[in-house]
Amino acid sequence: MTYCVGMTLNRGLIFMSDTRTNAGVDNISTFRKMTLWEAPGRLSLTLLSSGNLATTQAVISQLAERSKAHEDRDPGILSAPSMFQAARIVAETLREVVASHATGGMTSSASFKATLILGGQVAGGPPRLFLIYPEGNFIEASEDTPFLQVGETKYGKPILVRAYDPDLDFGQAMRLLLVSFDSTVKANLGVAPPFDYHFYETDSLCSGTRGRIQPDDPYYTLISEAWGQALKSALSSLPDFPTDRG
Amino acid sequence: MTYCVGMTLNRGLIFMSDTRTNAGVDNISTFRKMTLWEAPGRLSLTLLSSGNLATTQAVISQLAERSKAHEDRDPGILSAPSMFQAARIVAETLREVVASHATGGMTSSASFKATLILGGQVAGGPPRLFLIYPEGNFIEASEDTPFLQVGETKYGKPILVRAYDPDLDFGQAMRLLLVSFDSTVKANLGVAPPFDYHFYETDSLCSGTRGRIQPDDPYYTLISEAWGQALKSALSSLPDFPTDRG
Repeated sequence: MTYCVGMTLNRGLIFMSDTRTNAGVDNISTFRKMTLWEAPGRLSLTLLSSGNLATTQAVISQLAERSKAHEDRDPGILSAPSMFQAARIVAETLREVVASHATGGMTSSASFKATLILGGQVAGGPPRLFLIYPEGNFIEASEDTPFLQVGETKYGKPILVRAYDPDLDFGQAMRLLLVSFDSTVKANLGVAPPFDYHFYETDSLCSGTRGRIQPDDPYYTLISEAWGQALKSALSSLPDFPTDRG
Repeated sequence: MTYCVGMTLNRGLIFMSDTRTNAGVDNISTFRKMTLWEAPGRLSLTLLSSGNLATTQAVISQLAERSKAHEDRDPGILSAPSMFQAARIVAETLREVVASHATGGMTSSASFKATLILGGQVAGGPPRLFLIYPEGNFIEASEDTPFLQVGETKYGKPILVRAYDPDLDFGQAMRLLLVSFDSTVKANLGVAPPFDYHFYETDSLCSGTRGRIQPDDPYYTLISEAWGQALKSALSSLPDFPTDRG
């Protein structure tokens, strides 16, 4: 399992991904699921991946042209003329990788599918955020649905729905995301820290602040503990159900 | 889909179930999913059902001996000598109904499965709460897992995990359950009010307060609206992420 969120804010985009991969509960590993590409001044892209790890790594390697010698690499995605074109390049690569693994070779009970979130900005256009399906099609976040989730999306969704506000700054959005991730971690062993994050500031056209929240991160520990208490207080602030009304 | 919760408290048991059934999003209905049996002074049982509606209705009808004339009915479940035996009777009936529909007749792409929550008390024993699987086996709630959910369990679980306390009174537990149900309703169209509830008081050995929360219930409306605000305040009470730490 996996949990990744991409969120649009008035001041930019924020991304967070967990790092747990598992093939059964008895086979877990830690892998980065966030990939950044940038051509400073021209574009900045962030890709979050969920699903079959071989598929997502193959997609990223193909996009980065890792089959070529270092000096020959000129990733096509870095010359995408728009976010829409960048999403098409990623989606097409994903579709090809899934198709090449799913047909003509060994069959497997495991699925080769993967679902990706791609967000960023290309010079001349606004920041955009896409959810890319294994079939090679994609949808875009909008005012009505300003954040996109992949993986184990359910446990962490109610708090995002209730507390999202486009005016959040990165510190506040980070707090919201960590609460959402913490709710998920507490319920699904397939999602676990460390968490990778990236703040993209609108019109910066380069990677912004990024980092990793370790399981023993003092801020994460504080949020995880204080949130339980804050929730109980929030619940207590509402009136009890009038049990005498029958 | 469905959402039902049974919860153990120091003062008794509390149950809540939604009423939406659906076969696709274009075919929804309202059905009660909570059934009560009582023999005042000897036992009180509450059954919550999720899964195939034909299966759960058949189970309840068989348990209530509805195939017999009214005057001949003597539901075996009412003479169960213990909660464990009551759970066995329900589980065996469920297993038989599922098996009879699943084999030897028309096959269907729909599943005949159903999962039940059975809680209550039989004179001489403590209140007990069980989750009964379509295979006819069951598990019991315990101190470590004091509540049981069936149906769409994920959206409403984080608040239950965080705010559950065995010392809650029925009014407080009702508030907690309504918040959990509201989070679920906001995310899954297959769960919807009205909600049925029942408070069973330990050692009362008869049905307690029960009722139905309609979609326009003033208390539910208040909780649904105030909870969003209370959550935002709770989140604001936590410190922002220190974005300058890089």
